[in-house]
Amino acid sequence: MNKTKFTPISSIGEFELINKITTPAKINNKSTKMGVGDDAAILEFDKKCQQLISTDMLVEGVHFDCAYSPLKHVGYKAVVSSISDICAMNGQATHILISLAIPNKYSVELITSLYDGIHLACKNYNLDLIGGDTTASPNELIINVTILGTGDKKRVVCRSAANPTDLLITTGNLGAAYLGLQILEREKMIFEKNNQSQPPLDEYAYILERQLKPEPRVDIITWLKENNIIPSSMIDISDGLGSEAIHLATSSEVGIKIFEERIPISEHTHKTAKELSVDPLLCALHGGEDYELLFTLPIKYHKKVVGVSDIHIIGHVTAQKNVVELIKESGESINLTKEGWDSFLKQQE
Amino acid sequence: MNKTKFTPISSIGEFELINKITTPAKINNKSTKMGVGDDAAILEFDKKCQQLISTDMLVEGVHFDCAYSPLKHVGYKAVVSSISDICAMNGQATHILISLAIPNKYSVELITSLYDGIHLACKNYNLDLIGGDTTASPNELIINVTILGTGDKKRVVCRSAANPTDLLITTGNLGAAYLGLQILEREKMIFEKNNQSQPPLDEYAYILERQLKPEPRVDIITWLKENNIIPSSMIDISDGLGSEAIHLATSSEVGIKIFEERIPISEHTHKTAKELSVDPLLCALHGGEDYELLFTLPIKYHKKVVGVSDIHIIGHVTAQKNVVELIKESGESINLTKEGWDSFLKQQE
Repeated sequence: MNKTKFTPISSIGEFELINKITTPAKINNKSTKMGVGDDAAILEFDKKCQQLISTDMLVEGVHFDCAYSPLKHVGYKAVVSSISDICAMNGQATHILISLAIPNKYSVELITSLYDGIHLACKNYNLDLIGGDTTASPNELIINVTILGTGDKKRVVCRSAANPTDLLITTGNLGAAYLGLQILEREKMIFEKNNQSQPPLDEYAYILERQLKPEPRVDIITWLKENNIIPSSMIDISDGLGSEAIHLATSSEVGIKIFEERIPISEHTHKTAKELSVDPLLCALHGGEDYELLFTLPIKYHKKVVGVSDIHIIGHVTAQKNVVELIKESGESINLTKEGWDSFLKQQE
Repeated sequence: MNKTKFTPISSIGEFELINKITTPAKINNKSTKMGVGDDAAILEFDKKCQQLISTDMLVEGVHFDCAYSPLKHVGYKAVVSSISDICAMNGQATHILISLAIPNKYSVELITSLYDGIHLACKNYNLDLIGGDTTASPNELIINVTILGTGDKKRVVCRSAANPTDLLITTGNLGAAYLGLQILEREKMIFEKNNQSQPPLDEYAYILERQLKPEPRVDIITWLKENNIIPSSMIDISDGLGSEAIHLATSSEVGIKIFEERIPISEHTHKTAKELSVDPLLCALHGGEDYELLFTLPIKYHKKVVGVSDIHIIGHVTAQKNVVELIKESGESINLTKEGWDSFLKQQE
């Protein structure tokens, strides 16, 4: 190994690393309409239709823990989180490729169970599993998912075209998946101390399902199409509302105002947050893994979306470049920054 | 984890595992012309052109060893071996996505060096890097490459259409990459015993380059097109001639005869094989990582290919289903079997 200089990756962060390593990438093929930098790349092989493609790597111990996630759920969620990336482009997922690096400790039965989840998600969402790779792994189970989708060229949505006065909308509710993970972590600790205990988890069914078996918002993409609505920008909420709003604002070179009281949080989330003494708002802003959609809509669509189930207007776009504000019920404004999000994550470690 | 039954994956082997986990896969989208089972999947979005897609996972300690492979080479080779999969379909590689799981011990400088190799391969072969993912890894560096390519629908070649009497052709020469690896392993051991030693590797330059910086046979694909030749079946030689010939025979439901004296082996390979006391024929048959092409051609093309540089007729296709024979110079015939190949690999361990 090169011993001349050692800059730890943690010192520059994931986003700067990605920026550094992808900057030299030149585009040689005219079919490439967009490369790195959104939920999926956009390729165009014919005039009407665009192909969307995205890839995600999941690492045991980083993204999933076999101590509490059945492998069938891990497989299902791996596919679902990738479908969510295609939804975020306003597209329809069509094909998937799965690579696996498998440690010796995994049996044929366990890998079959993982694939039961993968096949179930493919069946539920009409995806074709068309390829993959399997190899040995010295330590962790590694899953790489590459997903392809398709979108009408006129309807494909990036992160970069939000305009001041646009409505900011989120689907479903936020924060539940994060609390589901906290409950699973707690039960794992209890189980490790006393492995006879059978945790009574029924009361957490909703938040656990949001963590273990999320569903992508394909229904929202269909609804948008049926109602002839095209968002000006869109992203899926995999890292928490705060971080995703910052991505939209940065990519679109706009600002965003989010009104605290409008952020949809389920009763289940409120209840469990209270029990665990955490602020449900923080779970929604920074929790992640909800796989809801966050999008902006020209204000002309206001009448069409108001009162629609699972669609919540939580704020609007402003002209203040890169300023993402949370407006508290008191009227107080709090700046949401990438640094704030990072420090939240550090507190959780 | 499910403790009910534990069948080790080694007891059924990689190919049976793949068969088991991909069998439930149904095809839902009419754009899917071929899924799992060849060098790449085939998708068709318009009538003339097909899209080819393939994915490969590379694991530190399994596929590469940072002790002797500079990361720039690892990155270059990761891209090249994927391009080779697209060549094997008689297509042209166009786009690539790279996922990385990075352990703490890797610096920004090392990852940048890996990407220098990736970008160089993209530049040399006109590929667009359009996406990826980066994540933390507790132990090994993991690289997943997904490659897309394009092919004229009439010219895309699978493994499955070889016919009796077809010529069997390999490109370049075989066995060198395997010996390159043996030299690197030997030097690593010497270095570990005495880390002051600077190994004199100049005399191994050719075989080391074949191991560390292979090139895909894009030139052959171009030559085939220019000469209006379409192979009846094709595969790239990543696992050794023996194993690839068995794949072609099985997929095409034919037999194959390979004539020992016709297998192209470079002088460098002969020389190093002698030094290491290994049979150069075994290196060609079972060594792997040569990234040459193995294909079959209707006999009508005989005149067009005979005497062409880097194109070697090494045998022909027979009607004896799944029987792959090596014909020795003495006239003796040896059956090449998957089991024979597996036992060879075991001997090497």
